[in-house]
Amino acid sequence: MHQASTRPAIAITTGEPAGIGPEISIRAAWAMRAQVNCVLLGDAAFLALTASLIDPAIELAALSVQALRNGGLPHFGPSRIAVIDVPLGAHVVPGVLDPANGRALLATLDLALEGARAGWFDAIVTAPLQKSTINDAGVAFSGHTEYLAEKTGTAQVVMMLAGETEPGNPPLRVALATTHLPLKDVAAAITREGLARVIGIIHDDLKTKFGIAAPRILVTGLNPHAGENGYLGREEIDTITPALEQARANGIDARGPYPADTLFQHKYLIDADCVLAMYHDQGLPVLKYATFGRGVNITLGLPLIRTSVDHGTALDLAAAGLGRADCGSMEQAIRTALHMVDAQRASQL
Amino acid sequence: MHQASTRPAIAITTGEPAGIGPEISIRAAWAMRAQVNCVLLGDAAFLALTASLIDPAIELAALSVQALRNGGLPHFGPSRIAVIDVPLGAHVVPGVLDPANGRALLATLDLALEGARAGWFDAIVTAPLQKSTINDAGVAFSGHTEYLAEKTGTAQVVMMLAGETEPGNPPLRVALATTHLPLKDVAAAITREGLARVIGIIHDDLKTKFGIAAPRILVTGLNPHAGENGYLGREEIDTITPALEQARANGIDARGPYPADTLFQHKYLIDADCVLAMYHDQGLPVLKYATFGRGVNITLGLPLIRTSVDHGTALDLAAAGLGRADCGSMEQAIRTALHMVDAQRASQL
Repeated sequence: MHQASTRPAIAITTGEPAGIGPEISIRAAWAMRAQVNCVLLGDAAFLALTASLIDPAIELAALSVQALRNGGLPHFGPSRIAVIDVPLGAHVVPGVLDPANGRALLATLDLALEGARAGWFDAIVTAPLQKSTINDAGVAFSGHTEYLAEKTGTAQVVMMLAGETEPGNPPLRVALATTHLPLKDVAAAITREGLARVIGIIHDDLKTKFGIAAPRILVTGLNPHAGENGYLGREEIDTITPALEQARANGIDARGPYPADTLFQHKYLIDADCVLAMYHDQGLPVLKYATFGRGVNITLGLPLIRTSVDHGTALDLAAAGLGRADCGSMEQAIRTALHMVDAQRASQL
Repeated sequence: MHQASTRPAIAITTGEPAGIGPEISIRAAWAMRAQVNCVLLGDAAFLALTASLIDPAIELAALSVQALRNGGLPHFGPSRIAVIDVPLGAHVVPGVLDPANGRALLATLDLALEGARAGWFDAIVTAPLQKSTINDAGVAFSGHTEYLAEKTGTAQVVMMLAGETEPGNPPLRVALATTHLPLKDVAAAITREGLARVIGIIHDDLKTKFGIAAPRILVTGLNPHAGENGYLGREEIDTITPALEQARANGIDARGPYPADTLFQHKYLIDADCVLAMYHDQGLPVLKYATFGRGVNITLGLPLIRTSVDHGTALDLAAAGLGRADCGSMEQAIRTALHMVDAQRASQL
């Protein structure tokens, strides 16, 4: 997935056009232009207008899909960001969703995937979508992650969030064994085989995409106090511990299960390359608290590098006008993707 | 529950003698002696030996239960900490549990309750116990909180943890709608009536024991993204929202349900007097992370003030010898109890 130049190229799907996605994509790409060739995928006219209203100094370079298909990504220097036109179906009204734009959003994802496969892009960074826009356009869609998994034929992916807690500390990384499930269904969704697979994916990706030679994975229990020897639930004994033993038998440094309320403390986290939490609200409140809303969402298990912001479309902010959104998480998503590209290149040498 | 003196008096049950409880009780009481009359409940000979090994300068004053029953707590100045002898059944081996000491541990709790009722003590602070020591002594015991509720005839109590996040920030307080349950049983344990009762207890205690005139309570959802309008679970719609409406109809400022991963961020927490989380591992990982292991456990709903540390007996540390345990949480538990005594006195003027 390399290009001729050593400067990495990153595709940025600019997301729901009525939200803050286009603004934070442009601002973050412009801020990062010295380090990376950013290629925005979205409606070129709308992005050009938005960029000119953010800062008239921003220079956009139009790329044609046909030219890319014929010759790959052209060289372009650190003074511009590139745009590939994926025309919207309807005019954008900030803050107002329009299903007429649903299919164009999917087209940006498809183009990003095509470019990753073809080697135009070293990584994909996605701005937030509104699932309902796509569903209301008549296409069943349950989220970026599921869509990318399906289109790349990936049976299982793992959601991981990462971010800096304070200068000098290693990044905090929290992966989830289950994601968007009603709480009452979580316990039954965790199986020994599934959990062992999740641990394997985390291990492999931390090695190959993060350059961590021997990743240490700390795993929470499912129940309070990790079940307290079975008094507060048996899943630790029946499911999680056997999955950890299986992972260790495969040479993976996976430890636990630990009580979640004890594990998420500086003195333990300092030794972890990743914490695997059993479910959404066990792992993400502390991650988002600790990273000050600058977390990055990373999809592990895909045959490509994909990162994303950890927030939504913020339609209300977009409706209020430009200049209100914080592009910090988007910049961090680009920075993380860059770091992963470098680590992956190094691991392939 | 006042005594003649205006210096508050606090009973400290010194906890499992084979753990760090006695050491942190002595060290914290000694550190706080200028501000509060601390009365340690435990084996006087063992506590005297421990104190002399910590610091020969520590002065203990022996109080007899009979004298208290006859005349209340005597005045004693800021140069000493008091001890009431509750003899153990067997010699202490640090790090080694002995069921022969189980009944003496309960006796310290009973004495603390007697003293709180009689007005000797303004508050109770408890060092950690090992539940198994008491159960192995033939007494069914599921925890401090449950025991104190039963002995005071309290139908429902609420567990709240609180702590300082950084200087200048208001304390973070997290209460739990459910506590020590297997995760799979949490959803069914949350009912509209029960939740409304929990919110009422939090409101009342924040007013009368914390001096907060109009407490604002922010409530999490049960499911990820607070159920996302029913797509990820219906408990928010069927149970939590009606309970919040009921609380608001009673004049309580209770808001939500909010997604837990979004709510636990500085910008929202700054406006909350308390966050009510639906279950243990939704609320406590972030609380313990944010308060650096200096959280205090507060039991709301009791007819007395009771605080506790947020950690366990640390048998391994105790076995390794004195001087290894951090008494910060214990000091904070005493400080919080003091603050509550002051607030309660002010609210009763």
